[in-house]
Amino acid sequence: MERTEIKNLKDNIDKEVTISVWVDVARNQGKMAFFDFRDGTGFIQGVVFGKPEVLEIAKILRPEWVVSVTGKVNKRPEKMVNKDVDNGYIELEITEIQVLSKASELPFEKDTELNLDTYLDYMPLTLRSEKSRKIFKTQAIIIKAYREALTKKGFTEFQTPKLVGGDAEGGANVFKVEYFKDNTAYLATSPQLYKQIMVGAFEKVFSTGTVFRAEKHSTTRHLNEYTSIDAEFGFIKDHTDIMDVLTDVMRHIGEAVKEASELKIPKKIPTMKLREALELISKDTGKDCANEPDLEPAHERWLSEYVLKEFDSDFIFITHYPVSKRPFYTFEDEDDKGYTKSFDLLFRGVEITTGGQRVHDYESLVGKIKEKGMNPEDFSFYLQAFKYGMPPHGGWGMGLERLTQKILNLDNVKEATLFPREMNRIDTLLSE
Amino acid sequence: MERTEIKNLKDNIDKEVTISVWVDVARNQGKMAFFDFRDGTGFIQGVVFGKPEVLEIAKILRPEWVVSVTGKVNKRPEKMVNKDVDNGYIELEITEIQVLSKASELPFEKDTELNLDTYLDYMPLTLRSEKSRKIFKTQAIIIKAYREALTKKGFTEFQTPKLVGGDAEGGANVFKVEYFKDNTAYLATSPQLYKQIMVGAFEKVFSTGTVFRAEKHSTTRHLNEYTSIDAEFGFIKDHTDIMDVLTDVMRHIGEAVKEASELKIPKKIPTMKLREALELISKDTGKDCANEPDLEPAHERWLSEYVLKEFDSDFIFITHYPVSKRPFYTFEDEDDKGYTKSFDLLFRGVEITTGGQRVHDYESLVGKIKEKGMNPEDFSFYLQAFKYGMPPHGGWGMGLERLTQKILNLDNVKEATLFPREMNRIDTLLSE
Repeated sequence: MERTEIKNLKDNIDKEVTISVWVDVARNQGKMAFFDFRDGTGFIQGVVFGKPEVLEIAKILRPEWVVSVTGKVNKRPEKMVNKDVDNGYIELEITEIQVLSKASELPFEKDTELNLDTYLDYMPLTLRSEKSRKIFKTQAIIIKAYREALTKKGFTEFQTPKLVGGDAEGGANVFKVEYFKDNTAYLATSPQLYKQIMVGAFEKVFSTGTVFRAEKHSTTRHLNEYTSIDAEFGFIKDHTDIMDVLTDVMRHIGEAVKEASELKIPKKIPTMKLREALELISKDTGKDCANEPDLEPAHERWLSEYVLKEFDSDFIFITHYPVSKRPFYTFEDEDDKGYTKSFDLLFRGVEITTGGQRVHDYESLVGKIKEKGMNPEDFSFYLQAFKYGMPPHGGWGMGLERLTQKILNLDNVKEATLFPREMNRIDTLLSE
Repeated sequence: MERTEIKNLKDNIDKEVTISVWVDVARNQGKMAFFDFRDGTGFIQGVVFGKPEVLEIAKILRPEWVVSVTGKVNKRPEKMVNKDVDNGYIELEITEIQVLSKASELPFEKDTELNLDTYLDYMPLTLRSEKSRKIFKTQAIIIKAYREALTKKGFTEFQTPKLVGGDAEGGANVFKVEYFKDNTAYLATSPQLYKQIMVGAFEKVFSTGTVFRAEKHSTTRHLNEYTSIDAEFGFIKDHTDIMDVLTDVMRHIGEAVKEASELKIPKKIPTMKLREALELISKDTGKDCANEPDLEPAHERWLSEYVLKEFDSDFIFITHYPVSKRPFYTFEDEDDKGYTKSFDLLFRGVEITTGGQRVHDYESLVGKIKEKGMNPEDFSFYLQAFKYGMPPHGGWGMGLERLTQKILNLDNVKEATLFPREMNRIDTLLSE
């Protein structure tokens, strides 16, 4: 019989159907057997009773076995209805079971709370837990909403290379790759220079792709490889135009994930300069941090609590980081010398986005590269975009995994990462 | 004045507007000046006459300068209407010009036909040509349509890692990366093993992301880095289920790109076994190739010509490649021993997709790994997915750039690649 997906069973009450599924839970009760079955579309309870030849097969089934099951879709009796689960008001009265694939005994129950290392060691199995499936379903929704929001605004998607000729940002640690003929290539830490080049072609662009950071820290917020969701566009007045577009994008994402988490996004996200933020924190904590060039993790948490309490917002923009703390391409504010038209977006205690206006004038950009102690010749390819006319422009970069983590309030970004890479692990633990 | 995008000018006839644009073409005619202006949304002709103070600025403008231009949107006189260009029935009567950014003199006219090396050397500029913009606009449409088609069918997108612990496919050359603590990592040649793992979690999955091939050839169809668009799903009868879904996806893409190219996709794409194909070719060419284990490029072209002539189709599926020529995870046809339930999809003379049913039984898979001379222990992470229950499944992989190339009938895949990497080039030429 043709397979019916679980999501369609509700339209087949009193009919005979065949489903193809994993055994999620098996409960053997002597003369009866109960199952929770799972496919890509949902869950359904199955029950065997009064059929000795079917019961015989039913008794050997264990979690994660793959089976085709034929039976009749019944409404459950009133007192057996369970409103809290998928298809809680129907069940399948099983008449036939065919085993498609067996499974070894599980090392732990699939939905057990595990420590992170065990979770990672067994990821091909632990990804099947309800918690993990929800996380990565949400992640798929986030990236789809991100692309939709920008496409609607006239942005063009482009594919950005990961093998690059140098460390463009002049900051983060980069992985080295053995390239051809004894040349060394590097793994891109961001699509920054390419997305600026693409503004020259399409004016408004975005990309979603992997970036790499060879940083040796292991924290709950950092990854050595992650999905960067970027955008860049031309003809802006200043960084506030970028913040406005980003606010719209976050609102669209919030709408898309609202079943999983309600994001508090006011019409206008509260904004303050870094110096104002640090002064507030100094006043409140009694520790003078007003002259720091950046925010500490504790400061980010403080500001998020503050903005939630004062403005009922999960988000706050911090602007005007010092020139010395931002990359060479960052635009200096002509009315606030020494500070940049750049911003970080904090969300629920963590910085999730960095963005800002970029330098668009060729001569100024060459000067900025030199000021940072780098050689403009190393940037000759990129600099062509500016030599041949670039409008005032800017954009942002954001980590998909960290965004997913904070939307779902997970403790560690690795829980929101498909196959996280860390110093000691690529899928399995590495030898020391 | 607020900026108006070019696409909205047609709704502003007889009104005064300000546009922010690149100068695409500048034609200075003494007392008049004509321009083609470009923004991310289209083209518009601008004209200056009878305004000496505006003409003075107009005369210094050159291609790729970035300007804000204020003027009145006029209908063109009947005899000046040009139906072949964007906004060919209106023009902007310029009253004010503000220079936002200058450009150096171009090394060649932007839309000149260039040799490939010059095109690549100047990519930040040459990407602005009409031809390039059309290519990458089409590429954005293709990948959007690909994701849409699969999302509609219930597939879940996932993000796949690029840093991997080994060469999973046991074939293609891989790039080596210096990882932490003297460990070596590799750059993924495909998301294959991860997408199979993900079938265990979501049943139907897809991914779009970069893969890397350290192959030393330089041909018109190969790249060292490209965007792989993959899918994988469970509960299939055999490889023909996969071919059916892929056919639907190609049809959806065809629909999306039809303005750029009309794809001939019959209701059922013609299919033959590799051996049948080789026999046909042998018969036609008089050269016996019937026992070859694979198709030569010339064979692919022959088959595409044949299927276009005989079936009015741009596509043909070739199935049943020998076990020896396919990776360990490929499913052997129980009714045609020695041959696999796998396929290639040829499109306009070139193979664009490889796919097939995979081995889903744990013991068989371990056996297949050993048969290929590899160690199952190296696959212990991946093998968990099979140890804990996997349905019959399969999928495909396809190169976005090659697909774009063939849809637009371009000579070289590098023309359809944003910043192609080759042995001698990462943006600029490498030293030998």
